[in-house]
Amino acid sequence: MTAPPAFDSLKTKLGEIHDLVKAAALMSWDQQTIMPPRGSESRAQQLGTIGKVAHETFISDEIGQLLDELRPFEESLDRDSFEASLIRVARRDFEKAIRVPPELFAEISREGSRTFGTWVEARANSDYERFRPRLERMVELKQRYVDCYPPPDDPYDTLLDDYEPGMKTSEVRVVFDRLKEALIPLVEAAGSAATPLVTGRFPAEKQRQLSLEIVRRFGFDETAWRLDTAPHPFAQSLGTTDIRITTREPESSLDGLFATMHECGHGLYENGVDPVLERTPLARGASLGLHESQSRLWENLVGRCRPFWSWFYPRLQEAFPRELGSIDEETWFRAINDVRPGLIRIEADEASYNLHIILRFELEQQIMAGLDLRELPDAWNEAMSRYLGIDVPDDARGVLQDVHWSRGGFGYFPTYSLGNVMSVQIWERLRADVDDVDDQISRGEFGAVREWLGEHVYRLGRKYLPAETLERVVGGSIDPEPYLRYLQGKLAVA
Amino acid sequence: MTAPPAFDSLKTKLGEIHDLVKAAALMSWDQQTIMPPRGSESRAQQLGTIGKVAHETFISDEIGQLLDELRPFEESLDRDSFEASLIRVARRDFEKAIRVPPELFAEISREGSRTFGTWVEARANSDYERFRPRLERMVELKQRYVDCYPPPDDPYDTLLDDYEPGMKTSEVRVVFDRLKEALIPLVEAAGSAATPLVTGRFPAEKQRQLSLEIVRRFGFDETAWRLDTAPHPFAQSLGTTDIRITTREPESSLDGLFATMHECGHGLYENGVDPVLERTPLARGASLGLHESQSRLWENLVGRCRPFWSWFYPRLQEAFPRELGSIDEETWFRAINDVRPGLIRIEADEASYNLHIILRFELEQQIMAGLDLRELPDAWNEAMSRYLGIDVPDDARGVLQDVHWSRGGFGYFPTYSLGNVMSVQIWERLRADVDDVDDQISRGEFGAVREWLGEHVYRLGRKYLPAETLERVVGGSIDPEPYLRYLQGKLAVA
Repeated sequence: MTAPPAFDSLKTKLGEIHDLVKAAALMSWDQQTIMPPRGSESRAQQLGTIGKVAHETFISDEIGQLLDELRPFEESLDRDSFEASLIRVARRDFEKAIRVPPELFAEISREGSRTFGTWVEARANSDYERFRPRLERMVELKQRYVDCYPPPDDPYDTLLDDYEPGMKTSEVRVVFDRLKEALIPLVEAAGSAATPLVTGRFPAEKQRQLSLEIVRRFGFDETAWRLDTAPHPFAQSLGTTDIRITTREPESSLDGLFATMHECGHGLYENGVDPVLERTPLARGASLGLHESQSRLWENLVGRCRPFWSWFYPRLQEAFPRELGSIDEETWFRAINDVRPGLIRIEADEASYNLHIILRFELEQQIMAGLDLRELPDAWNEAMSRYLGIDVPDDARGVLQDVHWSRGGFGYFPTYSLGNVMSVQIWERLRADVDDVDDQISRGEFGAVREWLGEHVYRLGRKYLPAETLERVVGGSIDPEPYLRYLQGKLAVA
Repeated sequence: MTAPPAFDSLKTKLGEIHDLVKAAALMSWDQQTIMPPRGSESRAQQLGTIGKVAHETFISDEIGQLLDELRPFEESLDRDSFEASLIRVARRDFEKAIRVPPELFAEISREGSRTFGTWVEARANSDYERFRPRLERMVELKQRYVDCYPPPDDPYDTLLDDYEPGMKTSEVRVVFDRLKEALIPLVEAAGSAATPLVTGRFPAEKQRQLSLEIVRRFGFDETAWRLDTAPHPFAQSLGTTDIRITTREPESSLDGLFATMHECGHGLYENGVDPVLERTPLARGASLGLHESQSRLWENLVGRCRPFWSWFYPRLQEAFPRELGSIDEETWFRAINDVRPGLIRIEADEASYNLHIILRFELEQQIMAGLDLRELPDAWNEAMSRYLGIDVPDDARGVLQDVHWSRGGFGYFPTYSLGNVMSVQIWERLRADVDDVDDQISRGEFGAVREWLGEHVYRLGRKYLPAETLERVVGGSIDPEPYLRYLQGKLAVA
């Protein structure tokens, strides 16, 4: 069966929507990196308009009719073909999008801007009560959003599906309960034996050069990538050959190197999508969780492993002789792999990070189930004590620390830990297929790692739901055991 | 009469179109400054889509109906009011836009991309015959474009109107004939007495610092502006408080300082538009000619005058002691004001520049009147000899030197010289109103100049047609005499 004209029409329309989405991506990238501050009011208007036009174009009757018309064609095709995948994914997106009145989307977006502003002030003053009325309103809007869909097994399923399509709350809970069981004692035991941090003054320009030395080996390439700085590092794809990654370069530490490797992992995923999928909704990572599996893989499994530093530590010492001259590789390695339970999620080590996430995952479910938000700070503080053994001194460093809820991003947090878990499943599979990974890394060679990931993960883009993508890569479903073995092995050694 | 709901609807719709136009402006700015080269294919698609969506939204029946409905409201208003101006300008734009089938716009744009590609190659090989078939096709498309409108007095009027709304070819001809009469002998006489150019090595970073020192005094401000480099400098406004100017910094000369002042002039115009006009089609300069009057005013009337250099030349010498230590202010002043007829428009001095423009203006009319394009190089070369006394050695430095025709930009060139002419009319008016302009400039003070321009020119934005804008500023119509007096006076002194 040759493609009917309706397929070309659908592809053209989805291509135009993709272009609009990428225009918004550029506006957002620019806003977070290089825009003059007084551009923000115009930019908010512009982003609002592009989002509205893209959404209205997508939920049009025309797209609905094309999708109906294409059903026989889709059924005649190999499920793995580009055409079948495009129709299947577009239909899933469409059926979700048309359930929500555009006015509700717009209200969540407007309320999100206001709530974000209030959150910034509330956090600066550690004043949760100032934030609470806005948060209550946002929760109400998100409950209305959930009500647009047929009742799921768990109301949280609907929220989770926006970030990790097809995943169920009950599946996440099984994984997280196992992590919790293993990590609470592990973090408690390891935390008391922490190595001192490496401190000093590390000039930004030098850090940038070192970051580039590393990520060029990973696959960063000036003809198709940029590296800029942003207060909160992120990666953005404006096309599979226009990848923008950002980092931060605080001069007081070398944390920026890991931020760059992390964002490079996101970038490699977007850059590695099959060119055939370009300018379609398939031309991106399968989910936030799988995306995070790739950023964590490059940051942690590659960037914090021994062979990596046997390659790069001499170079780092050479760059900062005063700060690192008297610190040996072993001490450096321990310092960057230490477990050190703390208040702030984004500063957390690899192991305790997951406990921060699990706490949020559990609280989000309680919030959606109707928790009185006056009790949220206590619930937060109690869980911090239970999971990390930490007393929270104020709400700024507690319940107010993250931006996500102000924008209505309930359901987003779990994907960070799902990414950690999947990263090791994928890494084990890779190591079974590729010989001498450690030797290669210890020579600063990453081509075989990148190519394996490209072939098995990146190329697929968003053709399949995350669970199917993972199944194709590792031959099974999500499983926390490899990740726990990895952490336990590493912390026993370090 | 209070504003009817239709006015709010029109304003909202125009605001959304404005947002789309600004999204395209950002994409274009990014493409010309910092985009990784391999982003260009995606970017072309994205720009095409945004342009199409903006155009389709504008020429919709909805806008037409709103404009009809708003006729009585408009007639009840003071013509100078924001509301009347918005309706009037939107109606003029709408009545032009609906005459052209969207398919023709799209074809000109697609053909423009292809012809641009061919032009790049043809220029590199000085191979006009390679370019000719594409140019013929483009001329044909532009003739079809002209045919969409009621027959004007002169077919060139329609093209000119896209860049200098309301201006007639016959009016331009009167101005240009007078310039030609005066400038051909002036350039011939001055050219033989040229001062040697100042040469040396001027590091880009130092040039950037000096450029910023100057334009910060003009009104550049980091909270609302950026300065970047681009192969062909330009200015772009993404909002009245998000102004992007660009410059080039070839290390072999200090030409980049003048490019920065030029683009800063464009930026000041956009930055100075009345905030009430923000996010409407009135929030920009009145025409390309008036825009150019402002870039030239800051570049030439301010940036090449004696008081300016009595302020800044010591600073320049201090920055480049080896290159400029032995060159006195008088020699520098002559070198930057010299008349030196040459082959290339963008390298031309202030006086001979206009002869390059007049040549193009005349050839464009012949082209639209059906000139056999096989004869175009000869026509070019003959005019270069007649106007500038120069033999053209090859087409790369002749008829192939400019990008404009490849994109279909017939009618654009005259605005450069119209800008020169208007700049001095405005400058004379300013000097009549502001005391001690020279003294202020010689102290590096530009606030009074900027404020006068803001109050009399910038604030108006695009409320009025260029002729009416000029009338309001100088109390008369376009007149080449002040400009000629200025050039004659300056060249007699220099």
